[in-house]
Amino acid sequence: MSLTQEKVNQAVEILKEQKTDMWLTFVRETSGVRDPALDFLIGAADLTWHSALILTSTGEKIAIIGNLEKDGIQRMNVFDEVLGYDKSIRNLLRDTITRLNPQQIAVNTSRDNVHADGLTHAMYESLKEYLEGTPYADRLVSAEPVINAMRGRKTPVEQARIRKAIEITEEIFQKTFAFIKVGMTEITVANYMHNLMKEYSVGFAWPEENNPAVNSGPNSPVGHNGPTEIKIERGHIIHFDFGIKYEEYCSDIQRVAYVLRENETEAPIEVQRGFLTVRTAIEQSRKAMKAGAIGNHIDTISREVITDSGYPEYPYALGHQLGRVAHDGGALLGPLWEKYGDSPNQKLEIDQVYTIEPGLAVPNYGYIGLEEDVFITSKGAEYFFEPQKEIILIKG
Amino acid sequence: MSLTQEKVNQAVEILKEQKTDMWLTFVRETSGVRDPALDFLIGAADLTWHSALILTSTGEKIAIIGNLEKDGIQRMNVFDEVLGYDKSIRNLLRDTITRLNPQQIAVNTSRDNVHADGLTHAMYESLKEYLEGTPYADRLVSAEPVINAMRGRKTPVEQARIRKAIEITEEIFQKTFAFIKVGMTEITVANYMHNLMKEYSVGFAWPEENNPAVNSGPNSPVGHNGPTEIKIERGHIIHFDFGIKYEEYCSDIQRVAYVLRENETEAPIEVQRGFLTVRTAIEQSRKAMKAGAIGNHIDTISREVITDSGYPEYPYALGHQLGRVAHDGGALLGPLWEKYGDSPNQKLEIDQVYTIEPGLAVPNYGYIGLEEDVFITSKGAEYFFEPQKEIILIKG
Repeated sequence: MSLTQEKVNQAVEILKEQKTDMWLTFVRETSGVRDPALDFLIGAADLTWHSALILTSTGEKIAIIGNLEKDGIQRMNVFDEVLGYDKSIRNLLRDTITRLNPQQIAVNTSRDNVHADGLTHAMYESLKEYLEGTPYADRLVSAEPVINAMRGRKTPVEQARIRKAIEITEEIFQKTFAFIKVGMTEITVANYMHNLMKEYSVGFAWPEENNPAVNSGPNSPVGHNGPTEIKIERGHIIHFDFGIKYEEYCSDIQRVAYVLRENETEAPIEVQRGFLTVRTAIEQSRKAMKAGAIGNHIDTISREVITDSGYPEYPYALGHQLGRVAHDGGALLGPLWEKYGDSPNQKLEIDQVYTIEPGLAVPNYGYIGLEEDVFITSKGAEYFFEPQKEIILIKG
Repeated sequence: MSLTQEKVNQAVEILKEQKTDMWLTFVRETSGVRDPALDFLIGAADLTWHSALILTSTGEKIAIIGNLEKDGIQRMNVFDEVLGYDKSIRNLLRDTITRLNPQQIAVNTSRDNVHADGLTHAMYESLKEYLEGTPYADRLVSAEPVINAMRGRKTPVEQARIRKAIEITEEIFQKTFAFIKVGMTEITVANYMHNLMKEYSVGFAWPEENNPAVNSGPNSPVGHNGPTEIKIERGHIIHFDFGIKYEEYCSDIQRVAYVLRENETEAPIEVQRGFLTVRTAIEQSRKAMKAGAIGNHIDTISREVITDSGYPEYPYALGHQLGRVAHDGGALLGPLWEKYGDSPNQKLEIDQVYTIEPGLAVPNYGYIGLEEDVFITSKGAEYFFEPQKEIILIKG
């Protein structure tokens, strides 16, 4: 069974579980604006003309697409019915929905999860117009719960790909730590990592301009920024934020090193204290993570470890789900800030994959941010890989 | 000046010309759903949190984005003002719009052009809510005319990139024609072309599953389909539809070959007649193309050449604009079918780039489709490259 077939079957089960009659993904010219749900429904392929991909809780799988794209979609063996048209989807779509007579039609619109928000405003208006005069125009609901569950619950194949992405990321980190010398710029280090990515034939979990982030010392701008011409010096903390994509699934990991001064054999006490604080925040959060826990509560645990230690709180969420993209949407380990919407109020589920990534600045030395990737089992959250437990010491 | 700076300056001029006060691109988590306008505003970069990119007809260029992404955007030197926030964009966006006091706010929503339709329904609703209680909530208009003009009018840098993409495409075609032997499958031929693409370090103008399309003989499914295990035989027409991406700009070209039977020195007369009909349709269309012409009229010229010769009309548009994507949106050389919306009614403009691609089937032999890429100058439409004037003969 292909991964697409596996995820579509999973979606049908989720529709049953959520008692939602129909999920409709309504798109066009997806090379221009691509609904993120398509990755699960048709893989990397694109659809040119107005297309409707319909799944129902009774197991129907129907694609309504332009005739010239019928053969390609049929060959995927995902949809049992592939209906084609030449000039307008209007009647075929209306008739198909009328035949299925759903009580709810879940469409891809969501304030809280961008990955459930592929329906553009103009396409929403078109759909309403196509359904005018039927009872179905008023039965549109958000597909966010369906998509959250489907994206969140990683199948064994998906988990294996993420694990492999993380393993490769760790190997690249180890080689990079051995490569670093005092006087190199952040850009030199990032280029070295890019070359290793080519050797491993892996892609970027987010655009290469900011991937990896390499921050050396206290003056390097932290955040979603690319590496700069700043040079690595003794006494610098070096912070990395790096993620790759292996067979369409991502890793997302932060690591921290310290460049020893001439007479040092360990990092200064304030650097060690910062590191331990972040490490403690991660471990305490991870221990509290289990199916049914609320994302916001996990964020609070970590945030309080940081602020109780006298550091300012980090201006972002503790962690996000990880999957086909680095920020995979759905339940978030986050504070209740408006920009995060309702996602921090959602519950953790088995088979979800999260990052845990608190951070703090150590004045005069640099930024400490660690990021570990974990998956939720019936026993709680497990690391995919050995987490960073000690600051990496670079002799320069 | 970077291409992004060049295109943003062009957009400001277009706002003046169209007497539109403000163009607002409103996005979030663009790794999940990416507004196509971003390519012109921030290149390949992504924005994580709710972000507003504002251009005005008086030349203001303002970005309102999450604080962690300020440095990256500032370094692009595209926006004169980069305003950052931590928790919510609401007040900063509202205050900035109030300060600028626009009579119209063009937002990225469009029934007719997907590339002007990056605003999702939920983001549209958010924006309306943020502006509630101000006069601006009712001043939203479609940015389609702005985006059509900006995407359509290719700068010299953009035209040069397209020209280079086309040149590489033609070289790959020539090598492929020399490679083909009777008994090879369509997939073998496509793989050979993929390997050449790697040698040239170019990307795909559309997904590789269907790129190139290779159709050998009368039984190969034509349309947006990938190559199959069908074997090349003597007496087959072989049809190719192939496009690459060079420095983010695309080619899109169709070519046709014929595999000679043992005793043949030229293609059968019905194959030649089909070829000449398509070639004539292209040339007559091209001659009619000039600034101010209506796309639909051009489509009709070609369509009538085909149907007047007794072939059925092709079930797609004659040609589309070409740019950062193969189907670049805006004015279309197309019939007035509902799925094409208003785009066939639009006028051609100088510096636009179009494909011309009629086609027809020759019973028992296969499909003849030619596709040439042209650009509009003050003198009319010019080919980027020598068009295919004779059917390519393959000795097998």
